[in-house]
Amino acid sequence: MKKIYFTCGPTQLYSTVQKHLDEALIHDIPSISHRGAQFQEIFQKTVENLKRLLAIPKQHHIFFLSSSLESMERIIENCVETNSFHFVDGSFSRKFYQMAIEVKRKPEKVEVREGEGFDLRSIRMPKKTELIAITHNETSTGVSIPLQDIETLRKIYPKVLIAVDIVSSAPYVNLDFSQVDIAFFSVQKGFGLPAGMGVLIANERAMEKARFLKKKGVNIGSYHSFSSLLEKAENYQTPETPNVLGMYLLQKVTNDMLIYRSSSRAKSRDLVGIDAIRAETDKKAKLIYNFFDRHPQYKPFVKDNRFRSKTTIAIDVKGDTKKILAKLEKKGLVVSSGYGKFKEDHIRIANFPAHETNNIKHLLSEI
Amino acid sequence: MKKIYFTCGPTQLYSTVQKHLDEALIHDIPSISHRGAQFQEIFQKTVENLKRLLAIPKQHHIFFLSSSLESMERIIENCVETNSFHFVDGSFSRKFYQMAIEVKRKPEKVEVREGEGFDLRSIRMPKKTELIAITHNETSTGVSIPLQDIETLRKIYPKVLIAVDIVSSAPYVNLDFSQVDIAFFSVQKGFGLPAGMGVLIANERAMEKARFLKKKGVNIGSYHSFSSLLEKAENYQTPETPNVLGMYLLQKVTNDMLIYRSSSRAKSRDLVGIDAIRAETDKKAKLIYNFFDRHPQYKPFVKDNRFRSKTTIAIDVKGDTKKILAKLEKKGLVVSSGYGKFKEDHIRIANFPAHETNNIKHLLSEI
Repeated sequence: MKKIYFTCGPTQLYSTVQKHLDEALIHDIPSISHRGAQFQEIFQKTVENLKRLLAIPKQHHIFFLSSSLESMERIIENCVETNSFHFVDGSFSRKFYQMAIEVKRKPEKVEVREGEGFDLRSIRMPKKTELIAITHNETSTGVSIPLQDIETLRKIYPKVLIAVDIVSSAPYVNLDFSQVDIAFFSVQKGFGLPAGMGVLIANERAMEKARFLKKKGVNIGSYHSFSSLLEKAENYQTPETPNVLGMYLLQKVTNDMLIYRSSSRAKSRDLVGIDAIRAETDKKAKLIYNFFDRHPQYKPFVKDNRFRSKTTIAIDVKGDTKKILAKLEKKGLVVSSGYGKFKEDHIRIANFPAHETNNIKHLLSEI
Repeated sequence: MKKIYFTCGPTQLYSTVQKHLDEALIHDIPSISHRGAQFQEIFQKTVENLKRLLAIPKQHHIFFLSSSLESMERIIENCVETNSFHFVDGSFSRKFYQMAIEVKRKPEKVEVREGEGFDLRSIRMPKKTELIAITHNETSTGVSIPLQDIETLRKIYPKVLIAVDIVSSAPYVNLDFSQVDIAFFSVQKGFGLPAGMGVLIANERAMEKARFLKKKGVNIGSYHSFSSLLEKAENYQTPETPNVLGMYLLQKVTNDMLIYRSSSRAKSRDLVGIDAIRAETDKKAKLIYNFFDRHPQYKPFVKDNRFRSKTTIAIDVKGDTKKILAKLEKKGLVVSSGYGKFKEDHIRIANFPAHETNNIKHLLSEI
C-alpha cells in the first residue's frame, strides 16, 4: 500500500517530483559542474520562478543554504552585532533566540504560552534592537502570526531589520516582501521536495548591515557570509558545491506551481498558479478546522481563529496520539505527532500544496 | 548520446545510484521523518558502513554536514581558539587558511608553488599551534601528500590536532585514522553521488577541544557546533532536517563498495571491497600517467612521482584545454578544465571508483 504523508515536513512529495527526478537523471543533472553554464541557468531560473511565485521584489537577493537552522544562524551572524529581539511562541522561534545566544549575541524575547499569539502592537522592545525575528508559522504549535501585524511592526519600527521565518507557510503565505528585510524557508515542507536545502531571501538593507558589521571586524562567518553568498549569486553560483539536484527540482516544481490549475469543480478553478494554490489551501484548512471544531473529543489546539495556521494544524487529541497514529498507519495515512512536550497529546496535520482535497477528506473520514 | 563525466566532482554517478534512487522513491525515503526510527536506521547503517569501508576506529564520531567548505568552517570554529597552521599547495588548502582568517582566528601557513609538494619534516611551526590543516589531495593542482608524511607529522607534534582534507581522495585514501584527529570529504567526488552532503570524522580529542572552547566562552557556532552535532548523533539524528535522500544513497553505495569485486581479469579480481577499489584505482592512475608521460605534448602537471594524485590528475596541455574539451564533448566525454589560473592550460581527469577501466582507456584513446 502506497502511503500518504500529511506530516509537517519532510512530507508528501509534490505530485510531479518523481517525473522531474527521472528527467534529472536522464539529463545528468547530478553530474554537471556547479561552475558551468547549465548550472547557472538552473540557479537563475529558480530565482526567477521564486520571485514570480512569491511576488518577491526584483532587487531582493535569493540565496541557497542547506537548512532553515542554517538560515537562522547566518541571519544572526550577518545582521546582528549585539541585539536581536525574538517573538517566541513555540520550539522553533525559541531555537532562533537560543542560536543568537550561542553565537554570542545578546538577544531579548517576548514569550507567550504555546497555542497563543501576540498582541504585537502592545509589545515594547529595546531601542537598541537591530533585528526583529518573527516566526510566521510556528510548526510546533500551529500558531500563525497575522501578516497585518508584521506590517504594523514595520510601521512602528521602520529602522529595525525584520526577519520572518516562513519555513512551514511558504509558498502559501502572501507576505509583502517589501515590508520585511529577510525571509527564509526550506524545501521539504510547502514545496513538497526532498529535504536538504534552505532558501534565504534578503534585501539590500540586510546586505548593507552585513557589510557594515564586516567592516567593523565582527565575525560574520566565512563561505556563507552574506558578502560571500552575494558575490557568487551575482554570477548565478554558490560558494560551495551545492545540492544541485535539489535546486533543479525546486526550479521544476516552482514551474509547475506557476501554471497550476485546480482540477476540482470549485469556484477556484478559474484561478491560476499561486492564487489557485492559496484558495485551495484555505478551503482544505476550513475542512480540517470545521471537522475538529465539531468533533466531540478532539479540538484544534489554537483557540483564537486569528492565530490558526492554515498549513500546519495542531489538534489536541487528549492523549490519543498513539492510538490515532496506529489506526491511520493501518490505512497508509501518516500524520505528525505533537512536538516536544505535546508529543503524546497532539497530532499535527500538514496542509501543503502537495495535499489534495480528496486525500484530506479521506484522512478526516478515517480519524 | 549518454555522456561520461571524468570531472573532479560533481562527476559520473556510481553505477548503482539510479537503482537506489528508484527504490528510495518506492519506499518514500524523501517523505520519512528525520526524527523517526526509519531515519535513525539509515544514519546508523551509514556510519557503520563508512567505519568498515575506511577502517575508522569505532570510537570516532561521524557527522553529516552540507559541504566540505562547511566542514572547514566548523573545524576552525570548534578546534581553534587562535592558531591554526596550514599547508597550502593550491586553491582549496588556501581556502581553508582564508576561512580561519574570516572567522577571526590567526592562522599561519607554509606555501609551495602549485604542482609542488612539501618536505613536511623540515617545516617548523609555531609552538602555540592548536591545529594543523593538511589537504591530502589538492583538487586544484593534482598534488597529493604522502600518507607517511602525515603520520610523521603526528610523531613530531603529538599534542597538536591534525585535520586532513580527504575531499577528493576518499574512499581511495588509505588513511590511518588513529593518526589524525579530524578528516572530511564530500559525497559528489569519490563516492559518485549527487552533491549536497559533507561528511566529517572527528575523534574524542577534537570533541574535547570543542568542549574546552565552549566552556571558555569562545563562539563555536550553534546548531552545527561539535557538541550539538554529537548530542544528536548519539541518537542517530542531526540537529537540522538533513539531506535524508543523500544519506540514504550514501548508505546504499557504501554497501555496494563493501562487496565490490572487479569484473576485469586482472590479478585484482581476487580482492573484495575497498581493497579491490584501491587496486583498480592504482591501475587506472598508472594508465593515465603512463599515457601522458609518453605523450609528445601534454604532460602531467605534477613532476615528482611522490606527490602525484591517484584520484584527480592534472595534465598540462599547454593552452589546448578548450580544444581538447570541445573534441571530447563531441564524443560524449567530459573532463574538468584547469582550476583558477590554470583554467586554459590544464585539463583534470578524475579517477574515482565510478570510472571504469574501459572508459578511462576510451578517454585516453580520444585525447
